[in-house]
Amino acid sequence: MRLWGGRFSGELDELMSRFGDSLAFDRKMAAADIKGSAAYARALAKAGLITDQERDAIVNGLAKVKAEFNDGSFEPKPSDEDIHTAVERRLTELIGPAAGKLHTGRSRNDQVALDLRLWLDEAIGDMRSDLAELEQAIIGQAETHIDLIMPGYTHLQPAQPVLFSHWLMSYVWQFERDRDRLADCLRRANVSPLGASALAGNPFPLDLEALAADLGMSGVTANSMDAVGDRDHAAEFLFCAAMVGTHVSRLAEDLILFSLPGNGFVKLDEAYTTGSSLMPQKRNPDALELARGKSGRLIGHLAGLLATLKGIPSTYDKDMQEDKEPLFDAAETLSLMLPVVTAVVRTLAPDGEAMRAGLDVSLLATDLADHLVLHGIPFREAHGIVGGLVRLAEERGVTLAQLSVADFKAASAAFGDDVLSVFDFERSVARRKLPGGTAPEAVRAQIAEAKARLADS
Amino acid sequence: MRLWGGRFSGELDELMSRFGDSLAFDRKMAAADIKGSAAYARALAKAGLITDQERDAIVNGLAKVKAEFNDGSFEPKPSDEDIHTAVERRLTELIGPAAGKLHTGRSRNDQVALDLRLWLDEAIGDMRSDLAELEQAIIGQAETHIDLIMPGYTHLQPAQPVLFSHWLMSYVWQFERDRDRLADCLRRANVSPLGASALAGNPFPLDLEALAADLGMSGVTANSMDAVGDRDHAAEFLFCAAMVGTHVSRLAEDLILFSLPGNGFVKLDEAYTTGSSLMPQKRNPDALELARGKSGRLIGHLAGLLATLKGIPSTYDKDMQEDKEPLFDAAETLSLMLPVVTAVVRTLAPDGEAMRAGLDVSLLATDLADHLVLHGIPFREAHGIVGGLVRLAEERGVTLAQLSVADFKAASAAFGDDVLSVFDFERSVARRKLPGGTAPEAVRAQIAEAKARLADS
Amino acid sequence: MRLWGGRFSGELDELMSRFGDSLAFDRKMAAADIKGSAAYARALAKAGLITDQERDAIVNGLAKVKAEFNDGSFEPKPSDEDIHTAVERRLTELIGPAAGKLHTGRSRNDQVALDLRLWLDEAIGDMRSDLAELEQAIIGQAETHIDLIMPGYTHLQPAQPVLFSHWLMSYVWQFERDRDRLADCLRRANVSPLGASALAGNPFPLDLEALAADLGMSGVTANSMDAVGDRDHAAEFLFCAAMVGTHVSRLAEDLILFSLPGNGFVKLDEAYTTGSSLMPQKRNPDALELARGKSGRLIGHLAGLLATLKGIPSTYDKDMQEDKEPLFDAAETLSLMLPVVTAVVRTLAPDGEAMRAGLDVSLLATDLADHLVLHGIPFREAHGIVGGLVRLAEERGVTLAQLSVADFKAASAAFGDDVLSVFDFERSVARRKLPGGTAPEAVRAQIAEAKARLADS
Amino acid sequence: MRLWGGRFSGELDELMSRFGDSLAFDRKMAAADIKGSAAYARALAKAGLITDQERDAIVNGLAKVKAEFNDGSFEPKPSDEDIHTAVERRLTELIGPAAGKLHTGRSRNDQVALDLRLWLDEAIGDMRSDLAELEQAIIGQAETHIDLIMPGYTHLQPAQPVLFSHWLMSYVWQFERDRDRLADCLRRANVSPLGASALAGNPFPLDLEALAADLGMSGVTANSMDAVGDRDHAAEFLFCAAMVGTHVSRLAEDLILFSLPGNGFVKLDEAYTTGSSLMPQKRNPDALELARGKSGRLIGHLAGLLATLKGIPSTYDKDMQEDKEPLFDAAETLSLMLPVVTAVVRTLAPDGEAMRAGLDVSLLATDLADHLVLHGIPFREAHGIVGGLVRLAEERGVTLAQLSVADFKAASAAFGDDVLSVFDFERSVARRKLPGGTAPEAVRAQIAEAKARLADS
Repeated sequence: MRLWGGRFSGELDELMSRFGDSLAFDRKMAAADIKGSAAYARALAKAGLITDQERDAIVNGLAKVKAEFNDGSFEPKPSDEDIHTAVERRLTELIGPAAGKLHTGRSRNDQVALDLRLWLDEAIGDMRSDLAELEQAIIGQAETHIDLIMPGYTHLQPAQPVLFSHWLMSYVWQFERDRDRLADCLRRANVSPLGASALAGNPFPLDLEALAADLGMSGVTANSMDAVGDRDHAAEFLFCAAMVGTHVSRLAEDLILFSLPGNGFVKLDEAYTTGSSLMPQKRNPDALELARGKSGRLIGHLAGLLATLKGIPSTYDKDMQEDKEPLFDAAETLSLMLPVVTAVVRTLAPDGEAMRAGLDVSLLATDLADHLVLHGIPFREAHGIVGGLVRLAEERGVTLAQLSVADFKAASAAFGDDVLSVFDFERSVARRKLPGGTAPEAVRAQIAEAKARLADS
Repeated sequence: MRLWGGRFSGELDELMSRFGDSLAFDRKMAAADIKGSAAYARALAKAGLITDQERDAIVNGLAKVKAEFNDGSFEPKPSDEDIHTAVERRLTELIGPAAGKLHTGRSRNDQVALDLRLWLDEAIGDMRSDLAELEQAIIGQAETHIDLIMPGYTHLQPAQPVLFSHWLMSYVWQFERDRDRLADCLRRANVSPLGASALAGNPFPLDLEALAADLGMSGVTANSMDAVGDRDHAAEFLFCAAMVGTHVSRLAEDLILFSLPGNGFVKLDEAYTTGSSLMPQKRNPDALELARGKSGRLIGHLAGLLATLKGIPSTYDKDMQEDKEPLFDAAETLSLMLPVVTAVVRTLAPDGEAMRAGLDVSLLATDLADHLVLHGIPFREAHGIVGGLVRLAEERGVTLAQLSVADFKAASAAFGDDVLSVFDFERSVARRKLPGGTAPEAVRAQIAEAKARLADS
Repeated sequence: MRLWGGRFSGELDELMSRFGDSLAFDRKMAAADIKGSAAYARALAKAGLITDQERDAIVNGLAKVKAEFNDGSFEPKPSDEDIHTAVERRLTELIGPAAGKLHTGRSRNDQVALDLRLWLDEAIGDMRSDLAELEQAIIGQAETHIDLIMPGYTHLQPAQPVLFSHWLMSYVWQFERDRDRLADCLRRANVSPLGASALAGNPFPLDLEALAADLGMSGVTANSMDAVGDRDHAAEFLFCAAMVGTHVSRLAEDLILFSLPGNGFVKLDEAYTTGSSLMPQKRNPDALELARGKSGRLIGHLAGLLATLKGIPSTYDKDMQEDKEPLFDAAETLSLMLPVVTAVVRTLAPDGEAMRAGLDVSLLATDLADHLVLHGIPFREAHGIVGGLVRLAEERGVTLAQLSVADFKAASAAFGDDVLSVFDFERSVARRKLPGGTAPEAVRAQIAEAKARLADS
Repeated sequence: MRLWGGRFSGELDELMSRFGDSLAFDRKMAAADIKGSAAYARALAKAGLITDQERDAIVNGLAKVKAEFNDGSFEPKPSDEDIHTAVERRLTELIGPAAGKLHTGRSRNDQVALDLRLWLDEAIGDMRSDLAELEQAIIGQAETHIDLIMPGYTHLQPAQPVLFSHWLMSYVWQFERDRDRLADCLRRANVSPLGASALAGNPFPLDLEALAADLGMSGVTANSMDAVGDRDHAAEFLFCAAMVGTHVSRLAEDLILFSLPGNGFVKLDEAYTTGSSLMPQKRNPDALELARGKSGRLIGHLAGLLATLKGIPSTYDKDMQEDKEPLFDAAETLSLMLPVVTAVVRTLAPDGEAMRAGLDVSLLATDLADHLVLHGIPFREAHGIVGGLVRLAEERGVTLAQLSVADFKAASAAFGDDVLSVFDFERSVARRKLPGGTAPEAVRAQIAEAKARLADS
């Protein structure tokens, strides 16, 4: 069954069918489509457009169709060009012509718009929950290893000592922003386009607000032409997914670097690494590399959909059928990637000794400059003095801490006799106790705040 | 002055300077940088790290530097590698070594992070306001021409009659979502990263919350490593800009099509068209074409920045200097594009007669099917019957309205004697009076709602 | 069977397996993988590393595996993480441990690099052939309708009269460039990376040039580290595909516009249009809209893969597994899109009368200026004079051709008495007979040249 | 002067001027524009459309305009909407109305199409030459340090020993492919669109082939409508640039990793690093990070232009004005990036001892398996045996080389008494002497081949 045969004299070309039919992928929206249709049937009955018996026949018939989808017994027909046609065709087989009343005042345009929004509701819920799991795993590791000190990097160069738990927590806030963005996306998506019909609006006396409420949505779209043409939420979801991917990619990059033989700060669990077909000694961080690689794909989906949307006039154009595959693929990619990364984090074995071995006293050069500041030297001048000492130590082939107190005093009279006490990684970390800093107490506060946010949402 | 010379023995290669120096573009953040530094000076004084006299010298010196930027008298030096260096260098010239205290506990990493956030605050405010202007122009046209009926399109094919004002209003909601997204972006951006220092946190006893409040920001970033590495808001802003561009592109496409010789629904004001160097008769819709074309650029900026961010480890990497140019260009592009499109809309001359001439009774085929529905025929069946009539009329070379009542009754006994009354465009439009529909009363309600939203924000 | 179990003590996490295993999509390379392995076995035998019996067992066994893939009887096992593992596992089942000799000196790194290049050879051949078919269809229409005159557009505004066949032919050259680019891509892709092994090169005395020749490739990669890390050809193929998509999108846009009710220059065959679920009169150009929409997806694949490749160090990283899905999808998308567009073109019904009705004498304004040029007026001045006449005609509400000879002479004494003879569309077209121009003879020359090129390649 | 004022009654809106005028950036094409116009004047004279005196006046006038551009004395006027207008306006001031004859039969559409192609010729020449310089620098380092052995990586894990020079050379081939692609791009770009006029072709009797030859181009475009609408070469150039960027990004990533404190295989010259404003000890690899970051921008330019081109109908649309800025920016970005990276490579200080320290005998596990292969064990089995030995060594906390011959024999009777001789990095490298392998003789051959290619082109 095509939903539009009447005025056509010929048949659709078979190649064209394969090109245009979307059931192969949009069956992912089966549950959403059926939910929407059932609600629409209830609204039609309330408006007196169908009888209560017809409503019940439709709603029960839809429930059967859904069951067939769920248990895998649904049998697509060649003429099922999309999920909407497939469901209506099957419903007609089950309950007869009353099924044909379901389309009263409704078009596939508002129907597919609704289905996508309902699907997004699910997908966003799942993604937010997967992100929360990942955050929990990170927090768990941060709590367990709260006190380990490691080199912190900028420009991929050792910069200052930081807590390993502080580094871990830096990702929680990235994923929290992702969750926040997804919630904003859902807020915009979660309004009902039913009533928009093809583009001009539904001419029948339905209660659209009640219908939206029946669907668990917060309201009704404000303009029917916009309602059928709007795919902002699809693009926004892909943007959110691309940002998640970007964060995961940076996390993966960090972990790959931290687990390099020269560093060894963490060891990845064997279960998330693979070997080489040629080199028997290899253990490759495949899970992380794949996660990093797949974040490129997410950027591609976003760029692709925007290019498609940019190239069309308003309301519904068939080009918009291209919204679904990137969306479904983005959701599916992350629905696997996030649990895998969560497992990688959960099974991570930090190596405090290796971290300690990676600490070099030059990481305390800033603390040395701060020491001068506390003795009255303007920071910019202190920076220059310490820079000179770094150079001196390098020329002598020693570390900063191996310079003598006399060396320090020669560089600046402001150095105190206690200057060598600066060379203490714990002390350096502990000094940074402002909100957001790397001191243990500040990290504990961060953890508490993060847990509160997760408990809240 | 470089801010970091101490440990270096040699000079920066001149080519490298040109490659790395960013003053040519990041001077756009001069006001933000100075605002941030003044607030930081006040915070240092409050914490006792500088004296009140030093604070005043710094704050007043910064005001002078700002004045020099504003009146164009600021003279960059070759060693001013970025706006932060330029400001500090000039401040040092003006007030002496006390300027060197401004960097106490602060790094360029948290400084640039702050500047970008402050710049975004401005840019988002401006863009939201430009969007509101555009919406006002659209609403103005919708109010003036509330009753004009035109063909509504889907798939770029005439679909159903709609109000021209309804079509206009469909864009208001698109731009309202853009404004909403920008507000969400700002909410996430508008927190202070000061205190993050280079990455590990600021070791001095500053009141970061008070500092954020002094800057008009809603809070403090939760993790210093995240704070210096976070450019989510830059990507999110570019996404918002790309969505604005997509909407403008669709509007431009619609207007170009509506103004085609074969349509003529609207006439573009000559002031936004240009001629041809060769063809004397030409009047090209350049403003709209350029707007449509430039929205591709905005997609490119987004894809480019995401690719850059995806490819780096956490905290600050120099790659992130690449965040600014696309951001500035996106803001600048839209700051010109939106007013131009606003002017195009404001000066648009709709042609009601041309619209009317574009209406074909076949646009009422759905109303004809609805007629059958109201006489008890399931919609799906009604659709088929009307489809047959469309074919019949086509074969006879007449319009649907030129078929006789007998023809209709032959197609279905359910057609009433009043079937020809369906062929009335006003009636078709008036039937669609649910919220969001194209009936005049529904469009008036839309306009009222849109005005209320604009007044609110 | 995993190919790398020895040093691992545990099992791969099941989630990780699903995340990392690629057999679901890389089975598309089955034929390429088997072809490569057979050639490698022959090379090993030639080098004395395996016996001729072993070679025959391997080659015959591989033929059986291929047959199983072809007839659908191949049964994947959960441990078949990719096509290479699957084939080797099955070969081992069929011929025993001798299969294990096939990996002598070969790594999955050079193996997958080879497979992708062999796959590209096929895919490029197919795409070039599909493009040639499309060009043939265009040329066919151009020949059949060589003399129809239609308005030519720039800026989507009527500009000058052109032949419909000239417009058609303008796409042949776009697709010829695509074919040219694909050939260049293949030239770079069609070298053998076998011998690169994992990254350092193959230590056994193989004849790599002979091996490449056996595979039908033009040579051997120059550096083993580059050979395993190079995916330029994948990106280049995606770029070629995106350009094809861009051309198809522009063609689709043209055809959708030409078939608008207000134009009607062409009629699309019903078999490539679909109807509306709600509006019985609709006939939507779905095939063209989908083609236009899908070209966005191709841009996305390119941007995505580049982002992935940009974000990794050299040689092989697992991220590169992400090269395959966009490649396969691009090839599959175009393998359906191009035949559909070919069929749309082949079944296109041009309407010469509608084209003629779309011609307006203002399209001859340039010819009018040329008339002045031939009477000695500099073109720039002539352009101004004709512009004034266009304005005059507009003010009077007449066409240019309805102005009197006196009007023309009043505007410029240089107008000849024969000025009205300019208003002849055939003459305008016929004047443009330089190579590449729209005169019938020039278009015939174009067609001949295009046919010669297609016959050549 | 606008080139099209005649038919317009009003003025262009000032905002619109700013939005549409392109002189600010397209003045980069001044030389190309003038070169094209001079050639066109010669062609007009040859066809008798202007006198030889007029031709000389035009050609000499253009030379003066060019000189004014070159010495900075050219004064733009507000009405100079683009470079073509600016040049023609100035020419008119210099030589009077004869300048107005230059546009005979020529449109800005074919003019700008030509200018872009001429500009590309320059830009591609420069980029190919910059790439050759970079290759020379790499080859220079490879020759100087031909014998240094370092760990080769896959998956960013130590894999097998390779020559540092082999790693270096792996980039030469990447950049050679870039040069090859650019040459292909130029081959397609380097044809003359003059004669296409606005879209329909030039009606005057010019010798287009001779005109193309005068411009140093290889031929004439085949279809005038395609000629004015074709921007394939712009997109292709951006793709080439993005691939160059991707290669540079991977090189930068490698070098950043090799120079990590834990590795130290190379030391970057101070002149291409910068310090920290806060941390006195820092030396950051800014040049490489920026190069890596800027390659994201190049991907963005490509995605953006493709989105713009995809969204328009055929021939010329104003949207295409957006082709220039990304093109110019890509060329400018690389014209700075490539010399900087060349300088970084040229000044790189490799540290053979650090490389040696990074070698671990586990990198010879494959050689150990090969040893078994040479004693008759199928490779797959040998891989498993050696994997077990790796595990054994790991459990005992020793290296593979510290296992006893008895240990080896216990694992497989096939191990020879000379098994320990496998643990020799030089020997491992020397074994890989096939073309493209890492053996010194193979690398020498590579270098010779690369030099021959560079000398050739």
